[in-house]
Amino acid sequence: MRETWVVGAATTRFGRLPESAREAATRVSLAALDAAGMQPREIGHTFVSNCFGVAERQVHLGPLVNTGLGIPEVPSASIESACSSSSAGLHEAFVRVAGGFDDAVLVVGAERLSHLDTLRSTSFFAMGADYPFETRNGATFPGLYATIANAHRHAFGTKEEELGAIAVKNHANAARNPHAHFQKEISLATYLASPVIASPLRLYDCCPFSDGAAAVVVAARETTPRPASEPLVIRASARSGSIADLQDRPELTGLPATRLAAAKAFRQAGLSAKEVSFLEVHDCFTIAEILALEDLGFFPKGEAARAGAEGITARDGSLPVNPSGGLKAKGHPVAATGVSQVVEVFEQFNHRAGARQVPSLETALTHNVGATGGSCSVHLFGHR
Amino acid sequence: MRETWVVGAATTRFGRLPESAREAATRVSLAALDAAGMQPREIGHTFVSNCFGVAERQVHLGPLVNTGLGIPEVPSASIESACSSSSAGLHEAFVRVAGGFDDAVLVVGAERLSHLDTLRSTSFFAMGADYPFETRNGATFPGLYATIANAHRHAFGTKEEELGAIAVKNHANAARNPHAHFQKEISLATYLASPVIASPLRLYDCCPFSDGAAAVVVAARETTPRPASEPLVIRASARSGSIADLQDRPELTGLPATRLAAAKAFRQAGLSAKEVSFLEVHDCFTIAEILALEDLGFFPKGEAARAGAEGITARDGSLPVNPSGGLKAKGHPVAATGVSQVVEVFEQFNHRAGARQVPSLETALTHNVGATGGSCSVHLFGHR
Repeated sequence: MRETWVVGAATTRFGRLPESAREAATRVSLAALDAAGMQPREIGHTFVSNCFGVAERQVHLGPLVNTGLGIPEVPSASIESACSSSSAGLHEAFVRVAGGFDDAVLVVGAERLSHLDTLRSTSFFAMGADYPFETRNGATFPGLYATIANAHRHAFGTKEEELGAIAVKNHANAARNPHAHFQKEISLATYLASPVIASPLRLYDCCPFSDGAAAVVVAARETTPRPASEPLVIRASARSGSIADLQDRPELTGLPATRLAAAKAFRQAGLSAKEVSFLEVHDCFTIAEILALEDLGFFPKGEAARAGAEGITARDGSLPVNPSGGLKAKGHPVAATGVSQVVEVFEQFNHRAGARQVPSLETALTHNVGATGGSCSVHLFGHR
Repeated sequence: MRETWVVGAATTRFGRLPESAREAATRVSLAALDAAGMQPREIGHTFVSNCFGVAERQVHLGPLVNTGLGIPEVPSASIESACSSSSAGLHEAFVRVAGGFDDAVLVVGAERLSHLDTLRSTSFFAMGADYPFETRNGATFPGLYATIANAHRHAFGTKEEELGAIAVKNHANAARNPHAHFQKEISLATYLASPVIASPLRLYDCCPFSDGAAAVVVAARETTPRPASEPLVIRASARSGSIADLQDRPELTGLPATRLAAAKAFRQAGLSAKEVSFLEVHDCFTIAEILALEDLGFFPKGEAARAGAEGITARDGSLPVNPSGGLKAKGHPVAATGVSQVVEVFEQFNHRAGARQVPSLETALTHNVGATGGSCSVHLFGHR
C-alpha cells in the first residue's frame, strides 16, 4: 500500500454561492490543484459529491466538472452518503491511490440549495433519514437529534449551558474563518434567549443550510514527492455503518458508527486518541459534538459535555475541536462538508489558518457523519 | 493485484416493482449472495446505485440495504454516474477487492420511478444531460440521440430498416428472458408503423422507463475459491469520460468515451475484440447499439448498421449482442442497468439463460454509457 497524501485543498466561502454547484465545484477543484502545484492532466480519476443536484436539475456532475478542468476523458463518479458524502469520496480516493490504481485523484463536494425555500430544502435533507420509519411520520433531523439530546440529558444530566458553550465556541472560531457562513460571535445569553426548535435544541444548537464547495487532491508520495504546499499524510481512512433509524437502535446516547470507524482508524494508524492534536468533528447540532468526543474516545461516556464549558476544546485549549467553526457556524453544505473538514486541516498544517491557528499540529482527526449516524467516516492525518 | 471474480448475481424482473427501491435492492442482494453461496457477514463494503431516490423521498440507501441484510455495521456508499451508475459501482468494487482492501463487495443498483407520471420521469432522466446547454433549451434524451442518429445517417447512410432490425432482434431476445420488461416479439412492420418520437427515432427505437433492481457480489479468488455458481473472472474493468454536451464535441457519429474505455479494457485484459464471444451493450436507443459496435471496435466506422439486419448479432449469430434483450426490450431502470448486464453474463456463463442461451461463452463484454456518453464503463469477463 502506497503512502498517500492530501497535496492540495480549497474551499469556497460557505453561505450562498453566486454560481451553480457545477461551477463552484470546478472553481474549487482548480484552486485545490493550484495549492498542490499540479496540472489537471495529472488527475486520473474524479469523485464528485452533490447530494441534491436535482434541485438544480443537474446530476451526473463528474463529466461536467472534468470538462471544466480540461480533462473530459478522465473517469468520474458521484458519491453520496448523505452528510458524509465527500468523506466517502475521500475514502475511495485513498483506496485508488494507496492501491496503485491512480497516482492522483480529485475529490470535490458541492451543494447549492439556497435558491429553494426552507420547506423544500428541509424536505430534501430529510430524505437522508429512514423514510418509512422516520420521515413519513414527520421526523426531520432537528427532531431526531433532539431525541438523542434528550436521551443523553436523561442518562448523563447534560445541561443546556453545556450545549450552549459549544455553540459559543464554534461561533467564536467561525468569526475568525473567512470561509465560514456565520462570521460572528454569539454570547451564552444570546444562545439561551434563542427560540427552541425541537426541545432541548434551540436555534443556535442547529447548523445552517449552507451552499458551498470544497475540494482536495489525493496523490501518492512516490509520484508527487514535492507538492507546492505542505501535504497531509493520510494515516488512516476508515468508514462504517449502522442501523439508520433511531427506533431500532439499542441505545441513543451515542453513535455506534462513530465508535466503529474510530476503532478502525486508530488501529490502521497505530495511534490513540491521546496523540491527536486537534479535531474537526460532525457538529450538525451541538449535541453531536458531545457524542463525537465520547464515541471517538476522547472522553468517557457522559463526560464530554463539560469540555466546551471548561475551555478544553477552545482553539487555544488542550484539545481544539472544530477550529473552523464546524458545521454549526462554518456551515453545512451537505456534500461539501466532509472534504471541507480536510481543507481546515490542510490550512492548519500549512499555517494558513490566521487568527484561528491551533497551537499543536502533530496529528489531526476528521469525523463526518451521514444523517443520524447510518454512515460515518474517520480520517487521521499526520506529517511526512 | 488479486484475481477478482463476480461470484453471485441476481435481478428482479424489470418493469414495475411491487416494492420500494430499498426493498428491491435488499431482495436482489440476498439472491446474489445466495447464488454465490455466501453469507451477508462476508461482505466488507457495499455500493448502492439509485439515481432518483428523491422520487421515493429516500437517499442514503446503503445503511438501509445493509441493515436489511443484517450487516448494518458495514460501510456503504451510493455511486451515481447517470445510466452507468452501477457499472461505476462495479468498477470501484473491483478496485477494492483487486487492491486487497476488501475480500468481498456487494454492488446493487435499483430504480423505481413508475409511480410518477411520464412527464416527471422524463424530467428526472433529463437531469443527466447538460442543463445549461441542453436540458434548459428543451433537449431530452430521445432528441439528443436523434441528433446522433441523424449525424450517423448523414455520414454513413444508416437506414430506418437497420435501426428497426435492432429493435426486432432485441425484442426477440427479451421474449425469451423472464427478467425482461417487454417479453414480446415485434415485426419490422410493427416497428415501421410505430410513431416517430424524435426523427428518425420511432417509439420502438427507444428503451422504456423501467423499475428494477440487480446485484452482484465481487470477491477475491483467494478468499472465495469455491463459490456456489460458476464465477466470472473480471479480466478488465475500465471507465472513461467525455465532454458531456453534444454541441461541444468534435463529431457526433460515435461516443469518444466508449472508444477510450474499450481501448483501456482490451489493454488491461490483453485481449482484442476478435476474442469476445458475446456482448451486452448500452442500447438506450437502437442507434446506440450501432455506435457501441463501432466504437468498441467490432465493426469499422459506418459498418455496424448491417449487423442486426444480417443476423450477425442475433443470439445464434456469430456475435450475439444483447441476448438479454438489452435496454431496448429488457428495460432500463437507470441505476440497475449496468449491473443487470453482468447478471446476464453470469446467467449465460452458468447455462441458466434458457431459450436465450448463446452458443459460445469464451469471453463476454459489457458496455454501459452514462447519458449521451459523458461516462462509459467497459468490463471483460472470462472463465477461471
